[in-house]
Amino acid sequence: MTRTLKLTLQYIGTGYRGWQIQPGIPTIQGAVEEALERIVGEPVSVAGSGRTDAGVHARGQVASFRTGCLRRPEVIQRAANARLPWDIRIIAMEEEAGGFHARECAKLREYRYQVWTGEVLPPFLHDFAAHCRASLDPSSFARAARTLLGRHDFSAFASSGSSSVDPVRAVTASELLSEGELWTYRIEADGFLYKMVRNIAGTLLEIARGRWPAEMMEELLRSRDRTLAGPPLPARGLFLERVTY
Amino acid sequence: MTRTLKLTLQYIGTGYRGWQIQPGIPTIQGAVEEALERIVGEPVSVAGSGRTDAGVHARGQVASFRTGCLRRPEVIQRAANARLPWDIRIIAMEEEAGGFHARECAKLREYRYQVWTGEVLPPFLHDFAAHCRASLDPSSFARAARTLLGRHDFSAFASSGSSSVDPVRAVTASELLSEGELWTYRIEADGFLYKMVRNIAGTLLEIARGRWPAEMMEELLRSRDRTLAGPPLPARGLFLERVTY
Repeated sequence: MTRTLKLTLQYIGTGYRGWQIQPGIPTIQGAVEEALERIVGEPVSVAGSGRTDAGVHARGQVASFRTGCLRRPEVIQRAANARLPWDIRIIAMEEEAGGFHARECAKLREYRYQVWTGEVLPPFLHDFAAHCRASLDPSSFARAARTLLGRHDFSAFASSGSSSVDPVRAVTASELLSEGELWTYRIEADGFLYKMVRNIAGTLLEIARGRWPAEMMEELLRSRDRTLAGPPLPARGLFLERVTY
Repeated sequence: MTRTLKLTLQYIGTGYRGWQIQPGIPTIQGAVEEALERIVGEPVSVAGSGRTDAGVHARGQVASFRTGCLRRPEVIQRAANARLPWDIRIIAMEEEAGGFHARECAKLREYRYQVWTGEVLPPFLHDFAAHCRASLDPSSFARAARTLLGRHDFSAFASSGSSSVDPVRAVTASELLSEGELWTYRIEADGFLYKMVRNIAGTLLEIARGRWPAEMMEELLRSRDRTLAGPPLPARGLFLERVTY
């Protein structure tokens, strides 16, 4: 008899080469599987809602695995947290119906990208935000962000290396949240192409600094040409915020 | 001709043995003096508004120094930030009248102490909060905190090693700010005794978990006995927030 457990994870991506397990290299999936295996006493294969790249953080990554272990989820959670490195935490663990799979069942994923727009980057944000000193126009950023809402072909914002066949995604939120000099770009969609958020955020910053008009966003979408968009922003500003099932 | 420059600093205290310079040991003052000396081309003695202990952070430490260097403050600031380690930033630099001294002229200092009260400590707070899993009563914490307002003899909250002669301090703010599971204790006074904030915050937590009634705070003040108060909380949750002149 096996059962399915769902994990909600927070992690600081700085010390890891991303989510996906690779032999001999520190990865989030590798660390989580290692901690769980010692507790459940059998090999474990953890499926994430999606892969995060090296240096990308999570405030609400979701993963799932099947196990024959019958201990209570809270007990497994506490024991796993005691074994995990401090920069990876399981913040919730619960039993799900057998058909649950963190990637296949995910309906919406929300990412946030943080940009510090002040002159001096606060040390507390060193690993958690991009830094842009240029003079920026928040209203053109917000206007361009809004044009992404709805179903679009996002080929123009997919970096090569993307394994997705279908480049169409439905975006349900795309907005700028500002708190003083800290700008946070929030985007929610049914799925994301490779480096899509960082490519979009980089393009929105180019628009905010006045290099392109806000209408450029629609043109880029229509072009489906991945050579035209702005440069991707660094991984350190990106957070996987939430996954909805 | 010399002039006086005022610096506002942010730093993560985790990697340093506190503010005060000590030969061969990483300290904030040592790092700042070293960076400034290379830029102004002469020995520099930086006075802080007060010392922070090993592991304590600052969002608004203020320091001052005298120099014969005539370069514009913004130029010195930028050059110093380029030389400083990433976890120490000068967020402002300005010229002051010759009589200015960051410690002697400070009127008010504000500290904040962060406590995570949820089951699992978020990795993002690992170096920036104490963790208390006990069930806590915010209203008794807040009530006890309020009794500190005004002028009191704080001997009961001074750890030994305090070099202060006069233990009387005037507290102008003492309150609990909560944001979900993150509790922040804010205290502002004309000055602080050695480890005073961490001792007070530790005592407030003991009250919040129900070990002592809120009235214990007044009794402790009256006792002037440093063996009675709660245990000091760890340095990592403490921030020097602001200094007012």
